[in-house]
Amino acid sequence: MGAIVGIAGASGYAGGELVRIVDAHPGLDAGRLAAHARAGEPLGAVHPHLEGGDRALEALDTAAMTDLDLVFLALPHGASTEPAMELVDAGVRVVDLGSDFRLDSAARYAAAYGSDHRRPDQLGRWAYGLPELFADEIATSEKVAAPGCYPTSVILALAPLLTAGAIEPSGIIVSSVSGVSGAGRALREDLLFGAVAEGVRAYGVLTHRHRPEMEQGLEAAAGGRVEVTFTPHLVPIQRGLLSTCHATMTGSADPAAVLAAAYAGAPFVSVIDQPPRTSWVAGSNRCILSAHADERTGHVVVLSAIDNLVKGAAGQAVQCANLMLGLDETAGLPTTGWMP
Amino acid sequence: MGAIVGIAGASGYAGGELVRIVDAHPGLDAGRLAAHARAGEPLGAVHPHLEGGDRALEALDTAAMTDLDLVFLALPHGASTEPAMELVDAGVRVVDLGSDFRLDSAARYAAAYGSDHRRPDQLGRWAYGLPELFADEIATSEKVAAPGCYPTSVILALAPLLTAGAIEPSGIIVSSVSGVSGAGRALREDLLFGAVAEGVRAYGVLTHRHRPEMEQGLEAAAGGRVEVTFTPHLVPIQRGLLSTCHATMTGSADPAAVLAAAYAGAPFVSVIDQPPRTSWVAGSNRCILSAHADERTGHVVVLSAIDNLVKGAAGQAVQCANLMLGLDETAGLPTTGWMP
Amino acid sequence: MGAIVGIAGASGYAGGELVRIVDAHPGLDAGRLAAHARAGEPLGAVHPHLEGGDRALEALDTAAMTDLDLVFLALPHGASTEPAMELVDAGVRVVDLGSDFRLDSAARYAAAYGSDHRRPDQLGRWAYGLPELFADEIATSEKVAAPGCYPTSVILALAPLLTAGAIEPSGIIVSSVSGVSGAGRALREDLLFGAVAEGVRAYGVLTHRHRPEMEQGLEAAAGGRVEVTFTPHLVPIQRGLLSTCHATMTGSADPAAVLAAAYAGAPFVSVIDQPPRTSWVAGSNRCILSAHADERTGHVVVLSAIDNLVKGAAGQAVQCANLMLGLDETAGLPTTGWMP
Amino acid sequence: MGAIVGIAGASGYAGGELVRIVDAHPGLDAGRLAAHARAGEPLGAVHPHLEGGDRALEALDTAAMTDLDLVFLALPHGASTEPAMELVDAGVRVVDLGSDFRLDSAARYAAAYGSDHRRPDQLGRWAYGLPELFADEIATSEKVAAPGCYPTSVILALAPLLTAGAIEPSGIIVSSVSGVSGAGRALREDLLFGAVAEGVRAYGVLTHRHRPEMEQGLEAAAGGRVEVTFTPHLVPIQRGLLSTCHATMTGSADPAAVLAAAYAGAPFVSVIDQPPRTSWVAGSNRCILSAHADERTGHVVVLSAIDNLVKGAAGQAVQCANLMLGLDETAGLPTTGWMP
Repeated sequence: MGAIVGIAGASGYAGGELVRIVDAHPGLDAGRLAAHARAGEPLGAVHPHLEGGDRALEALDTAAMTDLDLVFLALPHGASTEPAMELVDAGVRVVDLGSDFRLDSAARYAAAYGSDHRRPDQLGRWAYGLPELFADEIATSEKVAAPGCYPTSVILALAPLLTAGAIEPSGIIVSSVSGVSGAGRALREDLLFGAVAEGVRAYGVLTHRHRPEMEQGLEAAAGGRVEVTFTPHLVPIQRGLLSTCHATMTGSADPAAVLAAAYAGAPFVSVIDQPPRTSWVAGSNRCILSAHADERTGHVVVLSAIDNLVKGAAGQAVQCANLMLGLDETAGLPTTGWMP
Repeated sequence: MGAIVGIAGASGYAGGELVRIVDAHPGLDAGRLAAHARAGEPLGAVHPHLEGGDRALEALDTAAMTDLDLVFLALPHGASTEPAMELVDAGVRVVDLGSDFRLDSAARYAAAYGSDHRRPDQLGRWAYGLPELFADEIATSEKVAAPGCYPTSVILALAPLLTAGAIEPSGIIVSSVSGVSGAGRALREDLLFGAVAEGVRAYGVLTHRHRPEMEQGLEAAAGGRVEVTFTPHLVPIQRGLLSTCHATMTGSADPAAVLAAAYAGAPFVSVIDQPPRTSWVAGSNRCILSAHADERTGHVVVLSAIDNLVKGAAGQAVQCANLMLGLDETAGLPTTGWMP
Repeated sequence: MGAIVGIAGASGYAGGELVRIVDAHPGLDAGRLAAHARAGEPLGAVHPHLEGGDRALEALDTAAMTDLDLVFLALPHGASTEPAMELVDAGVRVVDLGSDFRLDSAARYAAAYGSDHRRPDQLGRWAYGLPELFADEIATSEKVAAPGCYPTSVILALAPLLTAGAIEPSGIIVSSVSGVSGAGRALREDLLFGAVAEGVRAYGVLTHRHRPEMEQGLEAAAGGRVEVTFTPHLVPIQRGLLSTCHATMTGSADPAAVLAAAYAGAPFVSVIDQPPRTSWVAGSNRCILSAHADERTGHVVVLSAIDNLVKGAAGQAVQCANLMLGLDETAGLPTTGWMP
Repeated sequence: MGAIVGIAGASGYAGGELVRIVDAHPGLDAGRLAAHARAGEPLGAVHPHLEGGDRALEALDTAAMTDLDLVFLALPHGASTEPAMELVDAGVRVVDLGSDFRLDSAARYAAAYGSDHRRPDQLGRWAYGLPELFADEIATSEKVAAPGCYPTSVILALAPLLTAGAIEPSGIIVSSVSGVSGAGRALREDLLFGAVAEGVRAYGVLTHRHRPEMEQGLEAAAGGRVEVTFTPHLVPIQRGLLSTCHATMTGSADPAAVLAAAYAGAPFVSVIDQPPRTSWVAGSNRCILSAHADERTGHVVVLSAIDNLVKGAAGQAVQCANLMLGLDETAGLPTTGWMP
């Protein structure tokens, strides 16, 4: 019998992916599944691709979850704070896939989200759930804030270079493209097939909320202020995220070698010579990196490919849960993709 | 009766698009259509979407084209030099959609292509076919080298800012995404549906041949050396190209205002407030720009959307031909897209 | 100066396509553009791909349209009846792209739509706007009901075979696939990119409203009762519709020859030997047919490809308007596609 | 330690899928991996999405495979016969994913493929690898011919109805759509992204080789001659196959009830009320059916959705291997999909 986990927000894309991964996990069992608008429906009505479709989606009730070993929260922005604290106070481990507890200070939160946090005392007191950098904090924490998809790809790409002093902390330029599942399952006209297919667009230019999170993660690696210009783009694929990261080299080290050394023992990060394709990691918890140093301009281009729903969301959350529960970090997490 | 034009390379994507635009053009008539491997077949066997499918694709024979008013060459890299010079020497106007005559010096050519040009005397003596910047040179030239798709999008985005001194000429970072038609119709495994769909990839990282062409075009605007780091990406769409361009602002001017002023009289360039989608220009000769100044970092992000086969290839070539033949610059060129 | 036409429902996909075609039409000028929820916005906010984006979308007001030469109605099911009759009564020609006036009897309407028609006296008194079969009726009518996209493809494929007695009128099986623009621009979860991409589905099995319309059109050709089993499918493309039609041959004639003879003078219908691809007609008003007789089973398979928004909607409506206004039937209608 | 299996043709799509499934299978271990043109390369060069990419692809050498428990052959048409017989003669179990041994007589083979079989004595002596119908034969056979993707979907849809006498054996009409991976990884112009995206086409009309295989499978169920008209279509998705099957009801039974009863104990077949989407089974070994009886015409429409690479190829082959090796039929086979 494995650890029993709950999943709140099971009707969304990340929530469905959590159910899929937990169901196939040798050490975890899905306990309660909670949803909001779709509460009362069977799982199969919302996610027909999942087996066990007759399981009920319940309304979220933290009081009924206090006997669980861990709860994953995959809720809209701002909706995690209250249930997360109720569960934490009841002694239940929480992995929050939302953005409520990722930032480390009230000031950064206000700058990113334009509003005050309701529990500013909690900011900086949740482990940041990027196991490649913060495994120890995660393993010893009862409350973990899983990173956003873009920050995951960018921090993995650049943090070791900043720690090694191989790149400058200012003037970092990131251009990312993401599949549509990253935008969630909301009913928005700009997410209709007719509005997405055969097109590419930038969005959230200069204002995307993941930029402050990236800077925070990179600052932890750099030991000082880091400045990023970030432009995300939407492209007509279901899954997959590629970040093309540019930084000025200091000349002190070969970026590819620094990355390879940093991730030598990381089971989910590969450093290769050729530009990675997102299709190679679809369905997998891997992040594939390549670094290309340009002697002509003194810049380095680091490419970082993940599946936004796996390493960028549900897979990484389970990776955190594995650490928190004393399981093998890789348990239940695929390193093989499924394309085509 | 309009001017009679020839189209060499009519079997490719850009060549087919030239046939489509010329057929609908009130002042041009398609004379000879030439192809290489597909010579001898009817047009309709190669481009079933075009009307007049019973027209013959002939082997390229410049001697038979000397009575034409103008010839478009849409040939693979390196294949234009010989027929182009034969036509020019015979007094026929040429618009070359290839890369043979775009660069202005033997040194730049060798740096870009890794080989010597066979007619270095011609380099710098062809008008660069970007009408928004070089209309006068084009209108008075018998030989025009139409720009590449990526350089078109990037030079339109940044040249006015360099001319105005609004951005620094070094440290320019460009990340572009393109649809698959930009890669042409070659039979390559990495262009199979199975290798492209549901994936995103960078390619030609640091080495793409369009980078020197961009720098040349931007240097003409800046009046001095310009340095670009350029990363192109392939995404699963048929048409469309979006360049996300980053530069350091000098603080002397508002980038959006500079662009709007520069293109106030340009029939095919729009400057808007919101990020443009490539789907808005599919099938159209328009380029849509938006500029986003980041006071926090001192960078500006300029977005530039075109249809790679129209403004990035066949449409722009016809725009040049219009100028060369004394027609209205906009004749026969759509400014309306067709999506969805 | 051309005829002045109004377009109601200009904010939808078919409405936008009408604006695009009318704008490029040498004999038509767009007068008033009307919309419902988007009334008050400029055209460009709704259709950024169209030029003339500063034109106003007005609320539909038939009293303000009485000086127009013709009005296109591209409204949701049931919404045409009232404005159509107001315009007709005011002496304005109407082409209705909706389904309100296509059926010829109250009984057929009730069977198809499960409700009574509000103006049953009008049923059977509108010309059915399929010019290849009903050009004379259309040319002499002030009120034309343009066909649905599926019926257009199927009636063109099978009507001549029924008229010639080459196929049996019962046991006809039609399986069609359509791009997403055929479903319109409604905000439905099953039309999100995430629900459409990388998938195929049947819908409206046995119950789709276009089936009675097909049978009616085919009965006109057969001179007796016709029975169709119809299954439409949605596939992840923007535009394009392919109907695969099966019928039992009577043995009296070669189906391909019958079709070729029937459409020898039809400017928009081609009969070819190979199976047509929908991409060949994207953006064009063409219908491409192929007929494949199976001596083994005595069945014939007729394939019929159209662009659902052009020959299946806006293009065909303009084709009707051309006839009604005494213009050339082909005026302003593209016969060239734009793929890739 | 599980059974050791070999995979020949590991460089193709079905071969890669076999590697992926076998690697995750608790009772199978991948021994030798063989390829043809890609022999000598590491697995990761051909399938970058698979882990264990440093494993070698060897040239196919049956003599080196005689110590394996079972070999999967995923080779082009006609290439299986020789190695299959060498392995069988050496006492190695074989599951052939190709078409060489599916048909039961030299006459049927010649009719389907237009050439004589080199080992006609073998025809009819291989078990047909559709476990839902032939589990006993498969479990007791050393040589199994796994079905084609289209026949799998169609036989599962119709065989129980024929066995029950619920439908007529003649006049069966099947229209199927398939994703591109079904066409394999061959370098063909019609499989380029530019030729597939935004389009739908029929192919192999009346002549597709899977039609005789369908008829054979259905005849086994009917106990007499069955006649099918079959039209396959290609649509722009990576994976997924939907067959829309039409038959005349005899009136003796409710088709949905017959199917539900027939598959009550089948772990991989579901019968549901609504039309299934292919995206629901992507990555899964499931087949989802729905049956829609039309009292009006006396026809039934049966929809059948599978993943062409899993239940239509590699998954079903492993399902057969499980039976042949005495493992649980469901071992290592996913019943959960991965969309989006």
